[in-house]
Amino acid sequence: MHLIEPILSGDRLSLSRLLSHIEADTPTGREALNQLFPHTGNAHLVGVTGASGTGKSSLVNRLALYYRNPPEDVKPKRVAVVAVDPSSPFTGGAIMGDRVRMRDLAGDPGVFIRSMASRGSLGGLANATAAMVQAFDAAGFEVILIETVGAGQAEVDIARLAHTTLVVEAPGLGDDIQAIKAGILEIADILVINKADRPGVEITERALKGMLNLAHPSERVFQHHGTLEKTQSYQRETKEKNVWIPPIQRTIALEGDGIPELHDLIAQHRSHLEISGILQRKERTRLETELDNLLHETLINRWRKSIDAETYRKLVDQLLAREVSPWQAVDRLLNGGKP
Amino acid sequence: MHLIEPILSGDRLSLSRLLSHIEADTPTGREALNQLFPHTGNAHLVGVTGASGTGKSSLVNRLALYYRNPPEDVKPKRVAVVAVDPSSPFTGGAIMGDRVRMRDLAGDPGVFIRSMASRGSLGGLANATAAMVQAFDAAGFEVILIETVGAGQAEVDIARLAHTTLVVEAPGLGDDIQAIKAGILEIADILVINKADRPGVEITERALKGMLNLAHPSERVFQHHGTLEKTQSYQRETKEKNVWIPPIQRTIALEGDGIPELHDLIAQHRSHLEISGILQRKERTRLETELDNLLHETLINRWRKSIDAETYRKLVDQLLAREVSPWQAVDRLLNGGKP
Repeated sequence: MHLIEPILSGDRLSLSRLLSHIEADTPTGREALNQLFPHTGNAHLVGVTGASGTGKSSLVNRLALYYRNPPEDVKPKRVAVVAVDPSSPFTGGAIMGDRVRMRDLAGDPGVFIRSMASRGSLGGLANATAAMVQAFDAAGFEVILIETVGAGQAEVDIARLAHTTLVVEAPGLGDDIQAIKAGILEIADILVINKADRPGVEITERALKGMLNLAHPSERVFQHHGTLEKTQSYQRETKEKNVWIPPIQRTIALEGDGIPELHDLIAQHRSHLEISGILQRKERTRLETELDNLLHETLINRWRKSIDAETYRKLVDQLLAREVSPWQAVDRLLNGGKP
Repeated sequence: MHLIEPILSGDRLSLSRLLSHIEADTPTGREALNQLFPHTGNAHLVGVTGASGTGKSSLVNRLALYYRNPPEDVKPKRVAVVAVDPSSPFTGGAIMGDRVRMRDLAGDPGVFIRSMASRGSLGGLANATAAMVQAFDAAGFEVILIETVGAGQAEVDIARLAHTTLVVEAPGLGDDIQAIKAGILEIADILVINKADRPGVEITERALKGMLNLAHPSERVFQHHGTLEKTQSYQRETKEKNVWIPPIQRTIALEGDGIPELHDLIAQHRSHLEISGILQRKERTRLETELDNLLHETLINRWRKSIDAETYRKLVDQLLAREVSPWQAVDRLLNGGKP
């Protein structure tokens, strides 16, 4: 495969070509991924999710900039961003986001941003995201930010592909109890309150803290207001106990406030995963999820090819006439419509 | 099946039992649905979706009340509500909503409300929703309101189960361009701006109108400000042209404002579907979707039972060691791990 060597040695054009193959799900793309897979497993996969209006994209932008331009004593990291929009099944609305971001990060070979709108099926989207992450991982990107819009099942599924998951909230987004979903909290490793200069930030923080206290009743929930000292003391605290309570970090992404602290919390979570041995377990679950998603897609595509269109059409006619029920139709298709 | 006759004759306890069977996906539930299916196809299925904070539940509540207590010259209708929360995969947060609603509708035998949190898989949730709708339909409920939280793929999937889809917005929910998804607009038959007494209602309406004009460039988009006269004139207009442009209806659900107009628009959409012949086509697509969802779930469950746990575990070990890629693992499982 002529793409493999250039990708491993950092050629952007070849990587870009592979990503297009992945999006189109071509045999070339699959074959390249098979060959690249032994070179994966090095990147820190960071999921970033939250409702629209929270400023997720700006936050991801700022984080990427910080990874590229850290304080003098820290080595810059190569960063890839996969921006996924599962709530946009019909239109490719993610494109504009790229252009806006490009202004800040354009021309930096250590950054690669790729947007992806839904391919119509959730399985397909999670599979394509996983494949893109593998490509970036093999290409030597050290941090891969997986950005998803929303807080539904699709985002939870995509979050399962990450090692560290950031859930982004913002003050004043509708009713607080409704906006902050219990479900989404359970996938959060770090909670971010972005747009923290907006009114209502205390209410949002109190609501989040309350829900965290419910989830971790034996532990004291710690909040960060943007000082490195507090972050470091929190890090020591959790390290000693080998337990991770999702910290709450305030940020103002547009001005860069709270970004260094957030960066440190992400690194700290990675260390926690490594020291506690959770990383290995998480990596196993992650790869199982990837495998299961691919299996589902393959099984359904196989079945779809095997079925006779005329048999299917007749069965739908009978469904419409209420002559067979959906379950009866399934039985006939799987037992009668196929050898 | 001892549940069938009582359900067909309107016994609530039997219906309630069946709904529990459906949620647990038992053989009893499936068998009952097979027998009930010939009695379905009469209800008007109305999907109600929108982001959290838009007041969807109150709106659904008010609509149900209006169906039960219409103006004197209109016959009350039996109403069922299926409230689905796909974004809550871990906790059954939908329960409280029921209690709140019960105060207004308690004791009325013509209303049945059932909440459902995610069963962990999207397919499972859409299938359970479809099954509940069938049960209510067979039990003689004339209007079935299918309420979903959010605006992601899961909601789009569930909206496909309805004849008429309401998309609910509210003023001031985050950035307007982000909050109003192009994708969700394409599934909307009626757009509702709830909480219309809030500041920013004009901005929301203008944004929605702009997006509708993009989608229907040759037609004039009509807005309703809560007067029956305007609604009726709109109805005449669209009827003559046999085209349906999603109308925008302002409501204040908590005070009942705009509910009669919304009720009329829903009825008008139903007539439009019938007169234009679209209902038959929509019903076909709807049943195909139900069938496909069931097929997917069945195929995956079958495969899961057929696979040897030890083979699977060893393959995941090899994945972790990067000795095989996910696609290679799929090939081995489907071609080697199974006769």
